[in-house]
Amino acid sequence: MPSEFGFNEGPGNVPVAGSADFCERHHLRLKGAKKLVAEIIAVGTELLLGQITNTNAQFLSQKLSEVGVFCYFQTVVGDNPDRLKQALEIASARADVVITTGGLGPTADDLTKEIIAEFCGLDCVLDEQSLRLIEERFKRMNRCMAENNRKQAEMPQGSIILKNNHGTAPGSIVEHNDKIYIMLPGPPYEMKGMFNDHVFDYLAKKTDEIIFSKTLRVFGMGESDLEMKLGNIMQSENPTIAMYAKTGEVTLRLTTMAKTSDEAEKLIESLKIKVNEILGDMVYAEGEENSLQQTVVDLLKQHNLKVSFAESCTGGLISSKVTSISGASEVFDCGVVTYSNEQKTNLLGLSSEMLEKFGAVSREVAIAMAIGVRKLANSDIGVGVTGIAGPGGGTQEKPVGLVYIGICGMNSETDVMELNLTGGREIIRERTSMYALDMVRQAV
Amino acid sequence: MPSEFGFNEGPGNVPVAGSADFCERHHLRLKGAKKLVAEIIAVGTELLLGQITNTNAQFLSQKLSEVGVFCYFQTVVGDNPDRLKQALEIASARADVVITTGGLGPTADDLTKEIIAEFCGLDCVLDEQSLRLIEERFKRMNRCMAENNRKQAEMPQGSIILKNNHGTAPGSIVEHNDKIYIMLPGPPYEMKGMFNDHVFDYLAKKTDEIIFSKTLRVFGMGESDLEMKLGNIMQSENPTIAMYAKTGEVTLRLTTMAKTSDEAEKLIESLKIKVNEILGDMVYAEGEENSLQQTVVDLLKQHNLKVSFAESCTGGLISSKVTSISGASEVFDCGVVTYSNEQKTNLLGLSSEMLEKFGAVSREVAIAMAIGVRKLANSDIGVGVTGIAGPGGGTQEKPVGLVYIGICGMNSETDVMELNLTGGREIIRERTSMYALDMVRQAV
Repeated sequence: MPSEFGFNEGPGNVPVAGSADFCERHHLRLKGAKKLVAEIIAVGTELLLGQITNTNAQFLSQKLSEVGVFCYFQTVVGDNPDRLKQALEIASARADVVITTGGLGPTADDLTKEIIAEFCGLDCVLDEQSLRLIEERFKRMNRCMAENNRKQAEMPQGSIILKNNHGTAPGSIVEHNDKIYIMLPGPPYEMKGMFNDHVFDYLAKKTDEIIFSKTLRVFGMGESDLEMKLGNIMQSENPTIAMYAKTGEVTLRLTTMAKTSDEAEKLIESLKIKVNEILGDMVYAEGEENSLQQTVVDLLKQHNLKVSFAESCTGGLISSKVTSISGASEVFDCGVVTYSNEQKTNLLGLSSEMLEKFGAVSREVAIAMAIGVRKLANSDIGVGVTGIAGPGGGTQEKPVGLVYIGICGMNSETDVMELNLTGGREIIRERTSMYALDMVRQAV
Repeated sequence: MPSEFGFNEGPGNVPVAGSADFCERHHLRLKGAKKLVAEIIAVGTELLLGQITNTNAQFLSQKLSEVGVFCYFQTVVGDNPDRLKQALEIASARADVVITTGGLGPTADDLTKEIIAEFCGLDCVLDEQSLRLIEERFKRMNRCMAENNRKQAEMPQGSIILKNNHGTAPGSIVEHNDKIYIMLPGPPYEMKGMFNDHVFDYLAKKTDEIIFSKTLRVFGMGESDLEMKLGNIMQSENPTIAMYAKTGEVTLRLTTMAKTSDEAEKLIESLKIKVNEILGDMVYAEGEENSLQQTVVDLLKQHNLKVSFAESCTGGLISSKVTSISGASEVFDCGVVTYSNEQKTNLLGLSSEMLEKFGAVSREVAIAMAIGVRKLANSDIGVGVTGIAGPGGGTQEKPVGLVYIGICGMNSETDVMELNLTGGREIIRERTSMYALDMVRQAV
């Protein structure tokens, strides 16, 4: 657990609320159900050298928690036969399911399959169908298949073969002596695809209840305030609520276990209604994939509206977020970065008297920027952002983190928001962008 | 190791070259030196639930490799006394140094120190100096110290105490029975600070050679081409070269071990010269922190030049990258996002005949955008970017990934680059931004 106030001090720290509780409640709830314990072994010397992050373990842990399988240990081991065998011995002694990632490639140091087969006393045999799929893949990519790629089609005898829809190496499941060994490829894109395509359902069938979860995305409140506002609901036992926070927003995951999917959906729906009653339109979307920018682009499309941005302290970040969404051109075609007073005058028509009188970082300038860019772009909504992102440039009166976001809407009505943000330059820019997008969402 | 062509297929995959070799060469080279093996144990239920990524393990692995300490296993365990004890037993049986992260907080489930003390048969005793530092920290932040924060100042008897310059929880080193136990806090910001402040030097003294490394940042070539171009140099044994790749750029880390720092620097310098001879100005910076945008901003400052950007497919990303650098306002004050033909005409003065004739994605339009924004912004250099980021919008003639970057320089001379990029929308936008920044660098 984090120390008292370490978690909000720098970028890269993700505050997490209620994790221990959440785990405990899962435990309690599962007392009646069949309990399955898994252990994750990531295989790869590049992980031990710190060349890549073990994001695979995070993904798998999340998914295991969703599917109701416990996980007490994760291990990383290099491409070394003896040490991999050692890790397998330890894991299979304390878990029902051992999931490996990596080591399914064509080269000599890819040896996960071979070692697990040996560990279970099985031979590896060529699987014709897997070989055909690999050959077809190379053909499709106009590349010549090397002889050592055949090795990727040699699978532990009697294993369940997992088709790789995103790469060459097939995965495999070996059921042996009441233990399950699941071998997945190392590249995250392939590994995630294979897990979602085959392994989630396989594991769900091994537990005797159905797992169902829904994600709500919340903007406008930090996690501790949110936890207080939700109060007792956070302690709900079925469904449970888990809170995940990242810069400026919080995700709530509602998870339930039930005997039927109807029952599961009903349980989730009833909790969702309670959450929505408390949080109102702070819940901006449902579902893991729906970012705030996606929501804003979708909303603008629905209402057939166009937006434009005039950015100072965010320097193009808001436009960049909106245009990261495919199809953004339907709702956005003009953004300007006016990083100096001169450009605010030049591009947006602000008077130098106004800039002189109120200063570049002021309510008045934010609104004038919004009006100016709306006119320049001939859009329905204009947004102007000005602030001090730091680390330099702050004064006692106007400190680093002071930001104004102005908006000018469909009927030329204007509004402005003052923010007093903390954090480094990147965090201030990021949060400002999120607030600006949220103002557009609220306006539409 | 990655499967044959999985690594370049999606975002989040970081290709790594030569990792096994690198490790092997470290081994060979170290045969004469005292070999120290470490094992990393990350403690925290939130890791087992997949709520956060174990970036701490990556950081520590990198640092251990730099300081010449081996690492064969990483483990993650929850906030559970019995399982933590189990992990300690296993790790101390196979490593000389056990490094833990997490579990130093003030709450009841923070128990790393207590369990390690028990494991070594030591009591925890209050360290007055640590307590004073914690109290002062709370005072400075105008917050009241809770009684349970005292627990953070209780340290294993006889341990080396590691001051936390970035949070409350002090760390600790216990030397016991020829084994070393190093306890670090969980929040990455605190953990990294503490490692750099105290632990790196501590470990360096335990090995009998000096480790010295230098990072070179390279743009304009993928890692496999780079590996071929560098040829035999990649096999250098002392210094070694390790290659780290991320979207659009490659980092080379030159690492040496020597008896004196003079000798180490000489070795690195001589290899660096060889690399520079081969790669020329593709090496854009030295040092981990110097990003391409930082280099570009620094260069423009040096030459007292201003740049402006007119972006279509990158939608503000280039401006956003430049303004992420503190002090960017000296070299940049105007960017425009012209996401439609209309805006290219409206803001940049492109004729509709030209747009009709060549199409929005063309050499001619990229150059005209560069000229237009240079004039609009009254800057020394103007850059215009137009392309098809996908997933929609591609044709046989102009496929997704086709990008033109135009540049108009100090004497109104122009240049244009055509790119044919692969990858998803985000990767195409990211790579385009990097190429545009690199064109500015080359022009200056």
